Amino acid sequence: MNVFILYAHPEPQSLNGSLKDFAVATLTDLGHSVAVSDLYAMGWKATADGDDFPVRQNPDRLHYPRESASAYTGGTQPAAITAEQNKLLWADAVILQFPLWWYSMPAIMKGWFERVYAYGFAYGVGEHGGERWGDRFGEGTLLGRRALVSTTIGGREPQYTRGGVNGSLFDVLWPIQHGTLYYPGMAVLDPFVVYRADSLTPERWHAITDQYRTRLETLFTADPIPFRRQNGGHYDGQQVLKDGLGGGETGLRMHLLQPGEPPEHPLGRS
Amino acid sequence: MNVFILYAHPEPQSLNGSLKDFAVATLTDLGHSVAVSDLYAMGWKATADGDDFPVRQNPDRLHYPRESASAYTGGTQPAAITAEQNKLLWADAVILQFPLWWYSMPAIMKGWFERVYAYGFAYGVGEHGGERWGDRFGEGTLLGRRALVSTTIGGREPQYTRGGVNGSLFDVLWPIQHGTLYYPGMAVLDPFVVYRADSLTPERWHAITDQYRTRLETLFTADPIPFRRQNGGHYDGQQVLKDGLGGGETGLRMHLLQPGEPPEHPLGRS
Repeated sequence: MNVFILYAHPEPQSLNGSLKDFAVATLTDLGHSVAVSDLYAMGWKATADGDDFPVRQNPDRLHYPRESASAYTGGTQPAAITAEQNKLLWADAVILQFPLWWYSMPAIMKGWFERVYAYGFAYGVGEHGGERWGDRFGEGTLLGRRALVSTTIGGREPQYTRGGVNGSLFDVLWPIQHGTLYYPGMAVLDPFVVYRADSLTPERWHAITDQYRTRLETLFTADPIPFRRQNGGHYDGQQVLKDGLGGGETGLRMHLLQPGEPPEHPLGRS
Repeated sequence: MNVFILYAHPEPQSLNGSLKDFAVATLTDLGHSVAVSDLYAMGWKATADGDDFPVRQNPDRLHYPRESASAYTGGTQPAAITAEQNKLLWADAVILQFPLWWYSMPAIMKGWFERVYAYGFAYGVGEHGGERWGDRFGEGTLLGRRALVSTTIGGREPQYTRGGVNGSLFDVLWPIQHGTLYYPGMAVLDPFVVYRADSLTPERWHAITDQYRTRLETLFTADPIPFRRQNGGHYDGQQVLKDGLGGGETGLRMHLLQPGEPPEHPLGRS
């Protein structure tokens, strides 16, 4: 299978760099083909702006989504953006490797999504009308692919549990896992996380790689996070979860399928 | 009072640009002093990397927080970073004006926080030991200041309510409002939000500015979001919310003070 690793860390000798190298070696040993985008090494342009559109529909006023749609469908995107889109299309699984900075991905990776996730490619896909708000959250261009967040965190695990002062990791990663990876259709696996990333010993490194190897071995077999599908029948015409669903959760976990709930519609029917 | 507007949009004629201009004019009329950092116009460097440290403690391996601590305490930060820190220190209130892109702030603004929020300035502040994990979440360098997120969203409001498919806006903004603004001590107000930002009419613009004017008039009097203080006695030694608190919430809203709960310790006592 094809695995695309999107990697962001300024220091090759970092824990993130080592985890990226470990994943490349392990996945290659497993017989997979691996592609890496090393955003810092590539000098990736982090900022979404008018320079992303060499041919402008409206040179007087930049509307980023409209120019994005026009460039994507018209074939006038910069080659650097098309190349990254092609890696996503080539991939059977996508791994994001990054340090959690201010409870999110590094800016250079955020800017990758802003520029590579073109209108018509990752959003603005499918019918928008009636009760249907596009092919997203369980449908979309990247349907059939898997995604894994592999991240390092300075803090300790209890602080990221339900009740932990930082918010549960599931909730903290919601904009990334649900809003960015699941949005265009990827099935998202539970994240692989190294806590206390600044106090690594050789013993911990061995334990971490043992755990990560298992996650890489099960990349194509593990059950993904059971996010509901937008067009699966569990949301109403306003895209709000229907009464009686959610298993008593009052936060973001209500968007996970719960035991005993009516099944979703088959894919393709809304 | 002093108000600092941190603004990120590539198009001056955008709704975000207009809201920024409206805030400058309104706050000035109200007698406040206003400073603006227009990140796109400034050509702000979005990517945190080794170039942020002209004097390196370890030239062979970049550890960003360690170099950040050294540069901050040693006075070797780039002038562009010090200037932004001084705007935060000067301000009595900070307004973030940005379009919500992929459920987060634009990369250029994310990179502003990564670079300006130095170790020893915004994190790594205060005692770390015993049950105390630093001066953060209700304490810190920026204590006494207020913060307001003003954002524009393409989608419709129901999709961001509790149960909405995008996640509630409170949950979506958690990494920004709690993890970034509240972290170094700022009191965060309810966000000001324009939904359906791409279908603006003159009538809507008038209604929006009426609402925003009210929010700006009450910038220094409105009640902030009642986030708990980390060192206020409601979290245990692992920084996990104590049993019986949270009012039955199972998600991030458990971190809001609920009616009838025991009061927090006075500030300064943990």
